[in-house]
Amino acid sequence: MREAYHDQLEELAGRLADMTGMVADAMENATSALLQADLGLAEQVISGDQKVDDVRSSIEEQAYALLALQAPVATDLRTVLAVIHAAESVERMGDLALHVAKAARRRHPAPAVPEDVQPYFAEMGTIATKLARDAAVIIREKDVTRARALEEDDDAMDDIHRHLFSVIMDKEWAHGVAAAVDVTLLGRFYERYGDHAVSVAKRTVFVVTGRMPGYGGDEDL
Amino acid sequence: MREAYHDQLEELAGRLADMTGMVADAMENATSALLQADLGLAEQVISGDQKVDDVRSSIEEQAYALLALQAPVATDLRTVLAVIHAAESVERMGDLALHVAKAARRRHPAPAVPEDVQPYFAEMGTIATKLARDAAVIIREKDVTRARALEEDDDAMDDIHRHLFSVIMDKEWAHGVAAAVDVTLLGRFYERYGDHAVSVAKRTVFVVTGRMPGYGGDEDL
Repeated sequence: MREAYHDQLEELAGRLADMTGMVADAMENATSALLQADLGLAEQVISGDQKVDDVRSSIEEQAYALLALQAPVATDLRTVLAVIHAAESVERMGDLALHVAKAARRRHPAPAVPEDVQPYFAEMGTIATKLARDAAVIIREKDVTRARALEEDDDAMDDIHRHLFSVIMDKEWAHGVAAAVDVTLLGRFYERYGDHAVSVAKRTVFVVTGRMPGYGGDEDL
Repeated sequence: MREAYHDQLEELAGRLADMTGMVADAMENATSALLQADLGLAEQVISGDQKVDDVRSSIEEQAYALLALQAPVATDLRTVLAVIHAAESVERMGDLALHVAKAARRRHPAPAVPEDVQPYFAEMGTIATKLARDAAVIIREKDVTRARALEEDDDAMDDIHRHLFSVIMDKEWAHGVAAAVDVTLLGRFYERYGDHAVSVAKRTVFVVTGRMPGYGGDEDL
């Protein structure tokens, strides 16, 4: 009986990891669509977002059923709650990838971002995708040693985002207001995507160790 | 025993409503700070955000304890889970008000937004504050009839935001790139604040009625 129960917990974590892989694909494709003005790829990401939302709903349903039928306590309860929180973050990552894809579609066939800032977006896209894939590994394997590296990758993302922002705000910005606005919003989508990936990783660390990284305190939430 | 348990649920909902009131105050003050270049008020919002985060932590702690000790099912379980989700949204609303206050501080003593778009921000600030206060009422009184009106107010927010965006993107925009970028980000903070308020209201409706508004389906999550 208990084995079946822990199988269910494992299955729940596995589905969350799969969902995280889906939003990694979404951001990878959205970034390609953005930089290569690929309308078909943009449409693929846009229509694929519904599936991400559906997976989140079914994870919540499964978590609710586990709580209602099994009344878990201690670590198991923490796990289920962490999965519920993480699924919300991962859905938001999917929404952010969707925003990127929509920007690619909106400006098509014109490039969505000026050529001289495209390297920033290529880099942010690479980091974002890696963050999501690493988060999926952390969930699947409970490998909390990777969480520190994930946070460092997100710090690199924030550096690039800050750098990009200074380029936009520089007097030398030659691409006009509309492009500045587009690039500002797009930069923010990548930055928030990274923040959510870190949040997912931290929740997993909390489940495994009983401590929320960065809080510093000892109280068991 | 059951009475004490339902008292605890009521207390949890009450604390969530209080937290929602706190972020309503934060956004109201942040908007005033923004439009009146009030540095003191901006600093007040900025330092007040830690308290919002602390309340969210303690609500999560209390919810966890309820789940672990009481093993609620059905409506009670839905209530506790909805409170956990809603607390996350309300904390994000606090963060968005914090961003507005930081923008006010960053540009001080210069106005944070050009004079001709200040009326948009005054209006978005009024709506945002109302959305949060209405969400608090809905939580406290389980008054789901208000949820429809709340969504309409958020639609009004989105209209203003879209209008503001078209002003920024217009060829006649005379305030330069930096101001366009600032106004873009600030507009997005208000728009996301409204989205989160709607999310909180929807979660409450779900608890009370068993249906998530807008889903249209009959399945009990």
